[in-house]
Amino acid sequence: MKRLCVGLIGYGTVGQGVVKILKSSRAVFRKKYGCDFHVKTIVDRIIHKKPTAELNARYSKRPADVLGDPDIDIVVELIGGKQPAKSIVESALASGKDVVTANKDLIANHGIELFALANRTGRHLYYESAVGAGIPIIKTISEGIAGNGFDAVYGIVNGTCNFILDEMTTKQCSFADALKDAQRKGYAESDPTLDVNGVDSAHKIAILANLAFGKLVRVRDVHTEGITHISATDIAFAEQMDLRIKLLAIAKKDGRSLDVRVHPTLISTRHSLASIHGIFNAVYLKADKLGNAMLSGEGAGQMSAASGVVSDLINCANAPAGPINANNPEQVKGLTLRGIDNIECKFYIRVQAKDEPGTLAQITTILGRAGIGINSVQQAVHEVAAFVPVILLTDYTTERTLRRALNAIQALSNIKGKPVAIRMETLW
Amino acid sequence: MKRLCVGLIGYGTVGQGVVKILKSSRAVFRKKYGCDFHVKTIVDRIIHKKPTAELNARYSKRPADVLGDPDIDIVVELIGGKQPAKSIVESALASGKDVVTANKDLIANHGIELFALANRTGRHLYYESAVGAGIPIIKTISEGIAGNGFDAVYGIVNGTCNFILDEMTTKQCSFADALKDAQRKGYAESDPTLDVNGVDSAHKIAILANLAFGKLVRVRDVHTEGITHISATDIAFAEQMDLRIKLLAIAKKDGRSLDVRVHPTLISTRHSLASIHGIFNAVYLKADKLGNAMLSGEGAGQMSAASGVVSDLINCANAPAGPINANNPEQVKGLTLRGIDNIECKFYIRVQAKDEPGTLAQITTILGRAGIGINSVQQAVHEVAAFVPVILLTDYTTERTLRRALNAIQALSNIKGKPVAIRMETLW
Repeated sequence: MKRLCVGLIGYGTVGQGVVKILKSSRAVFRKKYGCDFHVKTIVDRIIHKKPTAELNARYSKRPADVLGDPDIDIVVELIGGKQPAKSIVESALASGKDVVTANKDLIANHGIELFALANRTGRHLYYESAVGAGIPIIKTISEGIAGNGFDAVYGIVNGTCNFILDEMTTKQCSFADALKDAQRKGYAESDPTLDVNGVDSAHKIAILANLAFGKLVRVRDVHTEGITHISATDIAFAEQMDLRIKLLAIAKKDGRSLDVRVHPTLISTRHSLASIHGIFNAVYLKADKLGNAMLSGEGAGQMSAASGVVSDLINCANAPAGPINANNPEQVKGLTLRGIDNIECKFYIRVQAKDEPGTLAQITTILGRAGIGINSVQQAVHEVAAFVPVILLTDYTTERTLRRALNAIQALSNIKGKPVAIRMETLW
Repeated sequence: MKRLCVGLIGYGTVGQGVVKILKSSRAVFRKKYGCDFHVKTIVDRIIHKKPTAELNARYSKRPADVLGDPDIDIVVELIGGKQPAKSIVESALASGKDVVTANKDLIANHGIELFALANRTGRHLYYESAVGAGIPIIKTISEGIAGNGFDAVYGIVNGTCNFILDEMTTKQCSFADALKDAQRKGYAESDPTLDVNGVDSAHKIAILANLAFGKLVRVRDVHTEGITHISATDIAFAEQMDLRIKLLAIAKKDGRSLDVRVHPTLISTRHSLASIHGIFNAVYLKADKLGNAMLSGEGAGQMSAASGVVSDLINCANAPAGPINANNPEQVKGLTLRGIDNIECKFYIRVQAKDEPGTLAQITTILGRAGIGINSVQQAVHEVAAFVPVILLTDYTTERTLRRALNAIQALSNIKGKPVAIRMETLW
C-alpha cells in the first residue's frame, strides 16, 4: 500500500469536490489502486467550509505550509490564474513534489517551462482537468492512443458557448436570451466575456496543440473569435441545409504547417460533434494510426473537474519514476504556424440583398472574379421585403481572398449591412 | 532509453500492422516515449509476408522460441481464440514477461485467471484492442477516469452490426441487403454469424463489465440477442418517433444488482450514441463522479487494432513495476447478476392488427390487465389493408410480464403473426 501525503492549495468548489471524493472513496482506492491518500494540509485565503474532523487535515493561509513540508508528496494546485499559481507549482516541483493542477491558464501560458522543470527534477505534472474537466482528453492523447501522430484536433471545449448555441438552435432564440438562460442555470458567469469571446477555448486548444503536435503554440498564436455575433437567422438557415454552428477549437496540420484557431464553425448535422448538446464538451481527433475518434462528456462542474484531479492523483501515485516525455511540447523541426489569412476554408455567406433582378448576378460576379467557387445559392424568395437574405456556400478559398470579395459585395448599392461569413469544416 | 525486446505470436493483419508502426515510428517513439522496441522474433504457422530485412527479426513456427527466450521482455499475442493463446499467455506471464493481447475471447473467458497470474508474477497484461480496437476504452475505464465508480456502460462494440443497422436506417433496405453490402465492403465476414447474433458484443461487454464493476461476468451470463430479426418497417416507424435502433451491449447497475445484456435497443435520435454511424464503435459511460462520457472511433480494422497494441506496448514500457489491481475483476460483495426475466424496460411493440373497431381496445385491455402502462399508441390509419400495424410504446415493465401479455395478444383472432417487441433505453 502506497501512502501518499497530499497538500491542497485552493479550496474552492473543485477543491471541496476533491476532498469529498478522497474521503468517500478511500476504502475503494486502497483496494482497487493500492494507494491511500492523506490530505495533510489545505491552503486557502479564507477557509469557508471545513471538512469534517475525520479528514484530519490542517488548515492554513500560507502555501509555504505545503511547499515547505517534506512529508507532502503531491501538491494539488487549484487556485487558478498565472500567479501565484506558477510560483507555487515551480516551488513544488523544485522541492521534489509531484503536482496536479486544473489550471488551463498556467499550462497554456507556462506549460513549456513547467514541463521542462518537471523533467529536470524527475517529477510529474498532471493537468487533466485543465481541458474538458474530468473527460480524459490529456490522458488519451498522451497515453491512451500513444504511438499516434495527429492530423487534426477539433474541440468543443467551452460548455457555456455550446449551451448557448444549442439553445439558439433548439429554441430559435437570440444570443442574448440564450445567454440569460445560461446564467439562470449557472452555466455562465455573470461576466461571461472569457467564455463567449472564445478566449477560454483558445487556452485549451493551445494546450491540446502543444500536446498532440509537439509544437509550441502560445495563446496569442491562436486566432480567436467568439459567438456573440451569431444570429438565430444564420442558425436557422444552416439547419435547413443540414449544417450546425458550433464553437470549434481547431488545431490542424496541413503538410508542414499547423493552424490553430477558435471560431464558430458550420459542420454537418450528421457528424458526431453536431450531437454534442448543452454544456457537454467533446474532442474529435484525427489520429494517423487509430483513425478518427471522439471523446465527449461533462466538461465542467464541480464533480467532473474533481474527478479529473482525482484520476491524476491516482495515476500520479501509480506512475513510474522519472519524467514523462510525452507531455513536453518540444519544438518539432520544420512545422510552422499558419496565420489565419492563409487558411483555406469553405464559407457560408449571407447578404441582405435588394430583391430585384441583377443583384445575384452582381454578387456572383464579384466572387467569380476573386476565383471563389460557389457550391450553392439559396434565396429566400418567399419573403416580402425590400431586402431578402441570400445564402451562398463557397468552395475552398483563403480568408484573405474572401474578405476582399466581401468588402466589394458590401460596397454594392443593392446590399444592406455587412455580409455574414461563417467558416465551414468537413470533419470526416 | 529503455530497450525492449518484443516477441510477436500471430502474424496476421494486425500483427503486420504492429510491425509496420514499430518500424516507421521508431525514431518518434525513442524521442517521445524514451523507449526503443526491438521485434526479435515473429511466430506464426506460416509466415506469409516477411517484413523487410531492416526489421532484423527471426521467424519461427514455434511459440517456444519466444516463450523460452530470456531476452524477450514483452510477448504480443495475436493469434486469437482460447487455445493455444491461453497457454501462451500463461507461459509468458509465468516466465516473467509482460503480455499485450488483442484477444477478446481469451480475456472474456479467462481474464480472471490470467489477471490473477499476472498479479502473482508481478507482470502486466494489457488488452486494449480486445474491445473497440484502438479506441482507448480499457485505458479510460482503468486509468483515464480512475477513481470513478460506474452506474452503467453502454457500448456499440460491433462495427458490422452498426453498419448494417445504419444502412437499413439511411437506405431503408432490408437486413439481407445491408448485410450483402457490408460483405461487399469488407465490413462483414463471409460467415457473419458471431457478429450479427450478438456473440462478439457479448464477449466485449463481459470484459467491460468485469473492469468497470469489479464483478465477474462470464460470457454465458450475458443475455444475448442479435439483429437478424430487425426489419426495415420497425426502423422506419422508430425514426418517425425520433427513435433509432442500435445493437447495444449494456452493463447496468441498479442498487445491488447488475444486468449485462446485448440486444437491439431503441434510443433517442438526439443521443450521442444515435449519431455513431457506419462501422464506428462507441462506449457511453455513466460514471459516478465524472458524469456521462462517451468514447467513439474506428473500432475495427488493421491500423486501429495495431494502434491499440502499440499503445499497450508503450504504456507497458512506461508502467511502474508490480501488478495493476484495477484490472482485476474482483468479486464485489453483494452485487448479484440480474437475469433477463427480471429486468425492467420500456418497450416498442408492433402488432399487425385487423383494421376493425374493437381491436385496439382488446390489445390495450390485455396490456392494462398485465399492469403495463402505455405511453403512446400509433395506428397506421392510412394503409388500406386487412391488417395494419399498430405501434405501442409501453412504460417500464419486466420482460416476464411483457412476454406473457404478448402471448395473449398473439392469441387474439384479429392479430396476424407474432408481435414485435424491442427494448428501449433512456440514456440520459
